Amino acid sequence: MKLMSYSIGGRETWGVVLGDGVAELAGRTGQATLADFIASPDFQRRDALVEGLKADAKLAEVTFLPVIPRPEKIVCAVRNYMDHHQEVLAAGMQRELSEQPPIFLRVWRSQTPHQGPIIRPHVSESLDWEGELAVVIGKEGRDISEADAWSHIAGYSCYNDASVREWQFHAKQIASGKNFESTGAFGPWMVTADEIAPGRELKLETRLNGAVVQSSHTGHMIFPIPRLIAYASTIFTLVPGDVIITGTPAGVGWSKKPQQFMKPGDVVEVEIEAIGVLRNPVVAQG
Amino acid sequence: MKLMSYSIGGRETWGVVLGDGVAELAGRTGQATLADFIASPDFQRRDALVEGLKADAKLAEVTFLPVIPRPEKIVCAVRNYMDHHQEVLAAGMQRELSEQPPIFLRVWRSQTPHQGPIIRPHVSESLDWEGELAVVIGKEGRDISEADAWSHIAGYSCYNDASVREWQFHAKQIASGKNFESTGAFGPWMVTADEIAPGRELKLETRLNGAVVQSSHTGHMIFPIPRLIAYASTIFTLVPGDVIITGTPAGVGWSKKPQQFMKPGDVVEVEIEAIGVLRNPVVAQG
Repeated sequence: MKLMSYSIGGRETWGVVLGDGVAELAGRTGQATLADFIASPDFQRRDALVEGLKADAKLAEVTFLPVIPRPEKIVCAVRNYMDHHQEVLAAGMQRELSEQPPIFLRVWRSQTPHQGPIIRPHVSESLDWEGELAVVIGKEGRDISEADAWSHIAGYSCYNDASVREWQFHAKQIASGKNFESTGAFGPWMVTADEIAPGRELKLETRLNGAVVQSSHTGHMIFPIPRLIAYASTIFTLVPGDVIITGTPAGVGWSKKPQQFMKPGDVVEVEIEAIGVLRNPVVAQG
Repeated sequence: MKLMSYSIGGRETWGVVLGDGVAELAGRTGQATLADFIASPDFQRRDALVEGLKADAKLAEVTFLPVIPRPEKIVCAVRNYMDHHQEVLAAGMQRELSEQPPIFLRVWRSQTPHQGPIIRPHVSESLDWEGELAVVIGKEGRDISEADAWSHIAGYSCYNDASVREWQFHAKQIASGKNFESTGAFGPWMVTADEIAPGRELKLETRLNGAVVQSSHTGHMIFPIPRLIAYASTIFTLVPGDVIITGTPAGVGWSKKPQQFMKPGDVVEVEIEAIGVLRNPVVAQG
């Protein structure tokens, strides 16, 4: 099942994707947001809830919102694909793999939806793509074991962890370059976890103006999803609607020779097998 | 004026400190939270609003909450006191000062209030104190200039950016060790900015079981408050209730010889001139 957040007539809501349309579920379930729904017992009854429903609106008529518009936490893995690690070394950066997952945080205000603008700030032209698999947490937990981790996942989506490289490298802490407003693209929808077997290797491709710039699969992760969930939940309680973005594979613009960045007028896409295509125009900061 | 968040009878509210008591303002203003109040025009009329009020409850009868319980963002400066930078170098760590403020993010779930427990997680004994001045944002803004920065501040408070050092140093990204649940102590209250002149050097002292472990003043900051606000607001819009914690001075336990950490049963205090004393017991994770 594909679940999405969107607005229609200026009203923020969410629903289930049915073909080229969407059926609103906020009113039918009494849950104001998709995160509320995921946290509710209704989420386990979702098949019965949507049975026989017809779309209320065409996807073309609604405005997508980030799948979870305001996650309590967005936990981001750094240097989590072996192919990306190798390209970074080849680009001359001194980095050792750590024994524990390196993580940073994004704030929800840095997000943008499917079809929403990825905004290049006026302070830098070094805006780079990072296609990533996003995991949406479905069940609260602290100190979750790797064995239990899969049962805490509500679903999967695409993320473009777009990064302002110059600001990322201002200091050892990369949060600044990773949190520019309207850079973290998240969508178009969440595919529920029942449709993707635990550990399935998903093909991941990022395209800039139609040209493939990243092509890998999720099997290249250094720290697999259960390890990321176990690690993060040792630090804090994970709650429904929390998002873990799992790192990007090889092919970022910073490592290309010559380097390549996104500029206003570009269109960037992240496609992940079994999920869909996240597409965003790049726009200059106003 | 001192404003605080608290709960009484299990109900979360906020109010103004009057002597050894507090007068509730949620009902009187119609603003559910202190952050809502700061964002409202009422905040500018606060003197008239509280004139003649008497305390509804003794401070001893209420449960403090973090000054802002759920900030949209908690932006944290790293290595922002020259005396701390020097002690870290002396402890043998290779670090260069960066030309831009190094920042990381905390999630609100990592916070704990005045008198609330700082929880030592079961995975590490390396829980360290970091007394810091907290700045609460009062006015929304993006790309705020250093000259305008002071006008975006609602007030100041004390923060103990307690850090799990072993986890902080798992990788170059320190967010993991800086986000353990119930480690970021924030309180006891916010002193409104009108009471503290821009740039005033405030004495800052951290005590462990009554013994002074940090003693410095905010004039030792490498990147002063206006620079931190300007830098952060280049990345994203700062909104009322956002919190900037401004870094810690020399005297952290990690740099002492021998190293010293907080353990269950300890009491840690952060006192900042013109603000007050933030006091927390250290408790083992349950």
